[in-house]
Amino acid sequence: MNAPFDQRLAACRRRLEEADADLAVCFPSPNLTYLTGFEESPSERHLLLFVPRAGTDADPTLVAPAMYEFQLAALPPSTLEVRLWVDDEDPLETVARTLEGYVDVDGARAHASEDNDSSAKRGPTVLVDDRMWATFTQDLRTLLPDAEFGLASAVLEDLRIRKDDLELETLRRAAELADRVSLEIRERGDDLVGTTEAELAAEIERLLAEYGGGGPAFETIVASGPNGARPHHHSGAREIERGDPIVLDFGAFVAADLEGDGGGTARYPGDQTRTIVVGEPPTEYERVHEVVAEAQQAAVEAVEPGVPAEAVDRAAREVIEDAGYGDAFVHRTGHGVGLEVHEAPYIVDGNDRELEPGMVFSVEPGIYLEGRFGVRIEDLVAVTENGAARLNDSPRGWETGAGVR
Amino acid sequence: MNAPFDQRLAACRRRLEEADADLAVCFPSPNLTYLTGFEESPSERHLLLFVPRAGTDADPTLVAPAMYEFQLAALPPSTLEVRLWVDDEDPLETVARTLEGYVDVDGARAHASEDNDSSAKRGPTVLVDDRMWATFTQDLRTLLPDAEFGLASAVLEDLRIRKDDLELETLRRAAELADRVSLEIRERGDDLVGTTEAELAAEIERLLAEYGGGGPAFETIVASGPNGARPHHHSGAREIERGDPIVLDFGAFVAADLEGDGGGTARYPGDQTRTIVVGEPPTEYERVHEVVAEAQQAAVEAVEPGVPAEAVDRAAREVIEDAGYGDAFVHRTGHGVGLEVHEAPYIVDGNDRELEPGMVFSVEPGIYLEGRFGVRIEDLVAVTENGAARLNDSPRGWETGAGVR
Repeated sequence: MNAPFDQRLAACRRRLEEADADLAVCFPSPNLTYLTGFEESPSERHLLLFVPRAGTDADPTLVAPAMYEFQLAALPPSTLEVRLWVDDEDPLETVARTLEGYVDVDGARAHASEDNDSSAKRGPTVLVDDRMWATFTQDLRTLLPDAEFGLASAVLEDLRIRKDDLELETLRRAAELADRVSLEIRERGDDLVGTTEAELAAEIERLLAEYGGGGPAFETIVASGPNGARPHHHSGAREIERGDPIVLDFGAFVAADLEGDGGGTARYPGDQTRTIVVGEPPTEYERVHEVVAEAQQAAVEAVEPGVPAEAVDRAAREVIEDAGYGDAFVHRTGHGVGLEVHEAPYIVDGNDRELEPGMVFSVEPGIYLEGRFGVRIEDLVAVTENGAARLNDSPRGWETGAGVR
Repeated sequence: MNAPFDQRLAACRRRLEEADADLAVCFPSPNLTYLTGFEESPSERHLLLFVPRAGTDADPTLVAPAMYEFQLAALPPSTLEVRLWVDDEDPLETVARTLEGYVDVDGARAHASEDNDSSAKRGPTVLVDDRMWATFTQDLRTLLPDAEFGLASAVLEDLRIRKDDLELETLRRAAELADRVSLEIRERGDDLVGTTEAELAAEIERLLAEYGGGGPAFETIVASGPNGARPHHHSGAREIERGDPIVLDFGAFVAADLEGDGGGTARYPGDQTRTIVVGEPPTEYERVHEVVAEAQQAAVEAVEPGVPAEAVDRAAREVIEDAGYGDAFVHRTGHGVGLEVHEAPYIVDGNDRELEPGMVFSVEPGIYLEGRFGVRIEDLVAVTENGAARLNDSPRGWETGAGVR
């Protein structure tokens, strides 16, 4: 049985029909993994999933380079047709042949030239993966000159935004893994002094792998002292000194347990931030850390079904603004987390999407003082029937050393 | 002095003018790094580089999230204007304002509605990054309904395909790093037995980092026994046994030395494959390994300026076909390597592009016997004035243990 992936393909087809779209075309991306259990990085080779609307006879097709033949033979969805091309063929011919099975390629073109009133006869509506590279969307536009193009998120976002039990369980395991490493690093206390940011980042990644992680979910951030004022700092050669605030932002992918479902791959990330200090923190740091912690707590408390996403952002921002640090909180409060580390729902001013049970996102307010330090505290939170559940529960304070909570 | 990046931006602008295009728009990608020295992963946040054609007054502009403010202040190119947006603004407004500085947005639209003969008055020609996500190309199409869109590679590929001295020097260091780790793993001999593929992959990545690498250039492949028949196998829980052929395909990024050029980031990858055996190899293995080694040698010998890329593929393929394994060589012979691990020129049947001095690519024929084993041997090769220089020189045989060459 390959239930989850066949079910998701079927749900995608129904949504295409509801949206009056003919075809979704996915690219190596979380969308493709979500629908098939096949995970691969984007590359210049044509690897495309075609999913037709419900109510048509045709099955979905995966067009892939022949070198994936053996991997694809073990792929879960039973309704998926696999069409391979070899490196010395023109993959566009395979793509063109596949399109002909789904939409009236020549017909659409013929109509357009016979009849200038394009509203009367229109070409097919094709939704492309939001992450598809321009080189491939250009190919599709060339092959389907009369198609209207939209984004696959129009049908897939609503499916992916509510996590099912398998997904929630996997996200929880990814959070526990990050918690475990976070606590272990914090407990090292004095031992952290004198290591470089890059060395500490490598050590964090080593621990994440040792405890079962499947690789970093994003570039591990170790930002010490003034580097902490850069939210996306690249960990570098700076040595950690006593008294440095250290922003630690990391997580690893954890694989969903799909054994009982016929295999496939689906990996979910952890994403957690703590800001710690070995020894005495600098002036104003304790106050700033307290404000960020309060803002984070206020935001988590604001989470419940029916609340707009932006209200969670507002709850954090108000605490920080009231404390006089409004200008130093330079990013949104959070982002959804699922197969992607950043996905819907975004917890940002202007997003009035209402929260629903099953949504999972980060809550991560921060204060960044250029030339001095930064503080960010981040947990993943799942929306429940009547509120929120934090997936992370490692200590959120700044103190370090053995036995600290 | 920020010579390399300002020079590259200027060269890009001249090529746009020659191609009669108005504007290139890059996305976080090797193109953006090549032109600015700024490296970031693609994300859902609008981070776009606008480069106008030569002969216009306007400077290039980088539109970026405000959280990159401090990083971008240290960016090398002196002619680049940076325009920041904060998370609660609509970034499309900043993008629209930026486009207005380069192309006649309203004018283009007005012309199109006044005059149905679109060949007389056309909208602007905009070349988008080949890797730009569909979500951003859709934005640009909405903002510029009358523009003609093409791909930025039309102007950038020719610049990037010929490596300058700084790039060649960095690629050589990346190859030396891979060679060093390759030899060290091979020398371990018996110690490799009983480790899992995933453990060995982690150990390879640890060594690459210890010797100065900046992270794996791609997913490290350790494919043992029958797994070697899958060219892009994901290293897993299989334990390496005595007599297993083991395909080892890896490399790390190495940073270009830009200190004297005002900073910035540009990282170049290593990419090397060896297939080794601890103990006695299986039946037919020695013969297959010999054929692959001969094919690789023949391909390298075919490299010289003026030769079409496909001739190099042919040289390798002929050796393998003549030995009766033609059907088991399921991929092209190689790919260009630069800021990207896979880039032009592709060494594949049908690519008649002539080789030029400064091009760098992999030469990596393989034979894959499903259910049994695979063999691949890969070096990076630079085209010189009168032939080719291998960048890798670690042993290419299959024997393992201390002192093996």
